[in-house]
Amino acid sequence: MSRSFHIEATRGAARAGRLVTPHGEVETPVFMPVGTVASVKGVPQDVLEELGVEILLSNTYHLYLRPGLQPIRQLGGLHRFMAWPRSILTDSGGFQVFSLNELRQVTEEGVKFRSHLDGSSHFFSPESAMEAQIALGADIIMAFDECTEHPAGQERARHSMELTLRWAERSKKYFETHKQEVPWNAVSDFESRVSGNWLAVPGRLEAASSKPESSTGEARLAGQVSTPAPAAGQTQSLFGIVQGGMDHRLRKESAERTITLDFPGYAIGGLSVGEPRALTREIVESTVAHLPADRPRYLMGVGTPDEIVAYANLGIDMMDCVLPTRAARHGLLFTSEGKISIKQARFASDQGPLDPACGCRVCRRYSRAYLRHLYAANEVLAQVLNTIHNLSFYLDTMRAVRHSIAPGSKAQFLPGERSRAKP
Amino acid sequence: MSRSFHIEATRGAARAGRLVTPHGEVETPVFMPVGTVASVKGVPQDVLEELGVEILLSNTYHLYLRPGLQPIRQLGGLHRFMAWPRSILTDSGGFQVFSLNELRQVTEEGVKFRSHLDGSSHFFSPESAMEAQIALGADIIMAFDECTEHPAGQERARHSMELTLRWAERSKKYFETHKQEVPWNAVSDFESRVSGNWLAVPGRLEAASSKPESSTGEARLAGQVSTPAPAAGQTQSLFGIVQGGMDHRLRKESAERTITLDFPGYAIGGLSVGEPRALTREIVESTVAHLPADRPRYLMGVGTPDEIVAYANLGIDMMDCVLPTRAARHGLLFTSEGKISIKQARFASDQGPLDPACGCRVCRRYSRAYLRHLYAANEVLAQVLNTIHNLSFYLDTMRAVRHSIAPGSKAQFLPGERSRAKP
Repeated sequence: MSRSFHIEATRGAARAGRLVTPHGEVETPVFMPVGTVASVKGVPQDVLEELGVEILLSNTYHLYLRPGLQPIRQLGGLHRFMAWPRSILTDSGGFQVFSLNELRQVTEEGVKFRSHLDGSSHFFSPESAMEAQIALGADIIMAFDECTEHPAGQERARHSMELTLRWAERSKKYFETHKQEVPWNAVSDFESRVSGNWLAVPGRLEAASSKPESSTGEARLAGQVSTPAPAAGQTQSLFGIVQGGMDHRLRKESAERTITLDFPGYAIGGLSVGEPRALTREIVESTVAHLPADRPRYLMGVGTPDEIVAYANLGIDMMDCVLPTRAARHGLLFTSEGKISIKQARFASDQGPLDPACGCRVCRRYSRAYLRHLYAANEVLAQVLNTIHNLSFYLDTMRAVRHSIAPGSKAQFLPGERSRAKP
Repeated sequence: MSRSFHIEATRGAARAGRLVTPHGEVETPVFMPVGTVASVKGVPQDVLEELGVEILLSNTYHLYLRPGLQPIRQLGGLHRFMAWPRSILTDSGGFQVFSLNELRQVTEEGVKFRSHLDGSSHFFSPESAMEAQIALGADIIMAFDECTEHPAGQERARHSMELTLRWAERSKKYFETHKQEVPWNAVSDFESRVSGNWLAVPGRLEAASSKPESSTGEARLAGQVSTPAPAAGQTQSLFGIVQGGMDHRLRKESAERTITLDFPGYAIGGLSVGEPRALTREIVESTVAHLPADRPRYLMGVGTPDEIVAYANLGIDMMDCVLPTRAARHGLLFTSEGKISIKQARFASDQGPLDPACGCRVCRRYSRAYLRHLYAANEVLAQVLNTIHNLSFYLDTMRAVRHSIAPGSKAQFLPGERSRAKP
């Protein structure tokens, strides 16, 4: 698997690379927008493509609850389900379950939890989390880990780290045995095994039988056109996760022992859980030093625009965060002049663009006055446009970082746009 | 003004024409999507352009309350405010005020009403409704009328019709005196008169002063690029409205007396107010017979896809309705196979497109299963995609009607799309 990650340039600790997945190439360092329940809230997939999104993150916990794993597997996996032909990463559900606090119970075997939607009881283990992620069929999936709470004592942090290591081994073992079951891998083969017959898949049968013009009808199966199946035999990549709380020695040990399991990529988990930002940065810096240079490094759940630049400069290759999308829904917008709250009355008569230095479709077309009006009037378009801009800002920021590392890379800026990263 | 409406072909009572406004050409018969508070809920303006929307309707009552008329006037009018370069029609506010029921009080002078937002007191008269619509600067504006309730007795219907006639005269008189005050007509001239100085307009000043690179900055004033000002000297068109309840003779009299005021276009108001659909159609048919053939005819507030086809075939040129956009928000979708409710469980595993005969960006990409999931998970993207499809269906329907009247017209269909109109 390490052959599918290529480092093309470095500058200090920072690396510009290229991650090849069954659904395409991802230029790194990369920011992955979050599509919690198979949708980046309010943004159509073609707009995400236009923004240059090469990989999305989606949440196993949420998809497991709604619409459920089997519907997505039967429809050919998450890519076809959500009509997203490019790469996807799913988390293991561990972090969401961790966030449930009162609703969960951790044992050696796994985590028992209650749904935040209806209170129903569920259980995730390393094995079931792998089964779930294989059913979803993301390109990159994550080992099932325990996200250590903060603050945690030395003993608790060690215990939690050890549990995550045992779970990593179980995750890997299950994955290696079952990785051929990914829905997009030889669909006709695997689907016919599990469902008896390809045409017996309910949706497909209905779609086929309801159309007399079956040849046209077949070509018009939604999603089929835009999400071609990967080459036969390709499988997902399972990444390991380093834990260890806020203890440098535990982090080192967690990294070294996770590496012995030989994952094609490594994530740093258990950060952004309430600790001071300076501490986050320290832990990232010391942990990165123990990760292999030839594998992608994924820092989970960060951060602000400044932070993602800083982490990329520390040698992180992949990041995700709900901040740009969630902030957008609250009218908080990232611009080259800093963060602004579009709801403020001072924007009511401001006909300038949201960010004069931004070339996104929102800044090219709409005024601050209009965006402020949409927000004040509680119009859905406010959320749509705000989210598009914030994502554009994050993606532009990351493109600028990549360009600062590998000046010959595909970084493209519109006239008038400036480089946001100041390396 | 009648020179700006050209009939290009007829078939029976139906006409295919072309309406030229200060912001472009509109092929008729046309369906106008409703953007209540300067936004078609959830749909970005570039998507509306892509759908082929040539004219939008926006509501004076809602804009008057939020964001208010002066902010829009100061920002150059509704086109610039909402970054919509094509044509706009505003209603007079009469219908919305009529809908307030308990919150309004009608006198000869006008209508006193309370805001549905905060209960504050307001007053609309023919003069203030014209002043409001001139401030907004839509291409086509409507006389202030009283929408007669249904059912209404003969005496009440006559009284209401007479009031509408007197208000039409007052509307026209005010408009003729003040029509040069439209914000996009010689902006630098009029704005400098009302605001003292062009650069003293708050938003503009702020935008200019906050950017050292003033030449670039000027070019980047949002909306300026995409909404070029109409040629100097152009003004809005004020349409008259025919009332008369459900009485054919009153409708005839209303039409004839409104025509003596010589408007460049005529609307049929006071329908779709609770009467049976067969009666609506009868009244439309009998009223159309009394309207001049060389002026556009606008039927307000209709209808279903079947109805808009039927009304176009009766000789109606313009229609608007919240049905496609409102139904979309409730998961009700119009397709070539009839109306469907996407929330139904039977769609959970249906990987066919929403409408196999539709070529819109939603049907080309997403499955019914995905759209059903988005709706069930209460995702904002459900509203966005559903609205885009329903509008596309309406616009395709109207294009097919136009094509059936004038086969050489600009009707464009994607391969596989069928004509929905069965003339």
